[in-house]
Amino acid sequence: MTQVGRLSLNQATVNPLSVAEAVDLCVRHEIPAIGLWREHVARAGLADAAAAVRSAGLRVSSLCRGGFFTHADPAARQAAVAASKAAIAEAAVLGTSTLVLVSGGLVPGSRDLGLARRMIADAIGELVPVAQAYGVRLGIEALHPVFAADRCVITRLGEALDLAETFPADAVGVVVDTYHVWWDAALPADIARAGDRTVSYQVCDWTLPLPADTLLGRGHVGDGHIDFPPITAAVTAAGYAGDIEVEIFNQAIWSAPPAETAATIRDRFPQVF
Amino acid sequence: MTQVGRLSLNQATVNPLSVAEAVDLCVRHEIPAIGLWREHVARAGLADAAAAVRSAGLRVSSLCRGGFFTHADPAARQAAVAASKAAIAEAAVLGTSTLVLVSGGLVPGSRDLGLARRMIADAIGELVPVAQAYGVRLGIEALHPVFAADRCVITRLGEALDLAETFPADAVGVVVDTYHVWWDAALPADIARAGDRTVSYQVCDWTLPLPADTLLGRGHVGDGHIDFPPITAAVTAAGYAGDIEVEIFNQAIWSAPPAETAATIRDRFPQVF
Repeated sequence: MTQVGRLSLNQATVNPLSVAEAVDLCVRHEIPAIGLWREHVARAGLADAAAAVRSAGLRVSSLCRGGFFTHADPAARQAAVAASKAAIAEAAVLGTSTLVLVSGGLVPGSRDLGLARRMIADAIGELVPVAQAYGVRLGIEALHPVFAADRCVITRLGEALDLAETFPADAVGVVVDTYHVWWDAALPADIARAGDRTVSYQVCDWTLPLPADTLLGRGHVGDGHIDFPPITAAVTAAGYAGDIEVEIFNQAIWSAPPAETAATIRDRFPQVF
Repeated sequence: MTQVGRLSLNQATVNPLSVAEAVDLCVRHEIPAIGLWREHVARAGLADAAAAVRSAGLRVSSLCRGGFFTHADPAARQAAVAASKAAIAEAAVLGTSTLVLVSGGLVPGSRDLGLARRMIADAIGELVPVAQAYGVRLGIEALHPVFAADRCVITRLGEALDLAETFPADAVGVVVDTYHVWWDAALPADIARAGDRTVSYQVCDWTLPLPADTLLGRGHVGDGHIDFPPITAAVTAAGYAGDIEVEIFNQAIWSAPPAETAATIRDRFPQVF
């Protein structure tokens, strides 16, 4: 596969677009794969979204996302597990074998990291048989520690992998997202250890200063501080040969013309290698 | 020593105050130790600053800081090493055996984390004989990964310790600052491994949302998400019996009456244990 043949547009990068519009953008810019988000799929209708990507001939590299398992209220925990089970089924309908998990931050009212981590492990354990039944792999995503309190207590690839390895490899893997893990001195070793547990490779750049909403601080590949080629080389050497998703949360990019965003993504993609 | 007998006010917490004013604040609020900053010491004059803390009967728990070793220009690197050598000498004059190091971010114009880390190791190697001559220990501080690009590529206590262990224990140790390392699943194990390499224990809380200037996002103990007692217990179990510095960078706290800040610090200090 040529380099651009592995490019996937994560829908969050063009967040204002519908599934149909994002699919059309991929086709026009010869981007062969797309990463979908559940909210957008729900708005389009699951069957229509699945039909749109299939008739366009796109691969679906992943569905985002399950997770947010950390709640004080048991009913809320069960609801989060149920939502992630539904997401597994949706992933299968959409034709992707990868469901990305953002696991959740500290339990509201608690400062106990261990409690949050145990809740996440328990929830994933409940999802495993469903994932196996549908042939979908759950990708535990380590988020940057800046999000540890409020979004994800799993903060390093190595920690995500330690958790994934307690489950069968056909059901649970890890996501490598450059934005979240680039700073970690153990990253090369952890990527190597992940081997074929890596179910998704996502790229965007770390740019400064952070915006007021730290969620939206990501940049186009090449605009920031991340050294992509060694990370890509490590992921490849470890056996990952799948799509590479460009996933950028950034208000300025969301406000830009989508055609410009797609062109920039294609232009910059060789810098990932 | 009673709990409050271990309390140290890091001068950065009351940044608008001079050394004399900060010393006076400690005396009035029966805070038995102070962490000093070089800029403030320079403004006061080194001899006068040393005399002020000595005549007040305060311990000096640390001097902040040496570091920022990562420069493309060799002359700038040498200047940073020279400044850190001067800081070692100042620490000795001020009567503290701890100089905190903030090592530096990526080399300007470079995305090579390894290059930055090697520059830091080389610089610390140059400082070791000077530190030994003065009886001062260098404390490598891991900073939160949100600062990896621009302030410190050493992002985890374990990484700081790996580096410290390449040098003699009487010259190089590590700083445990809750704000920077609280999120790390490996923290308890790394604190235990640090043992008596821990030369400083600093506390403040992780609060959300982050302000526009991420440097200033720290909170009083108890106002945020950090679970202090298990971290303090681990640091203590590993053999650290020294001062515990409250170091908070926060514009609202800087704008508050210093007496109020000192009172809050004393009130909250038992929550650290």
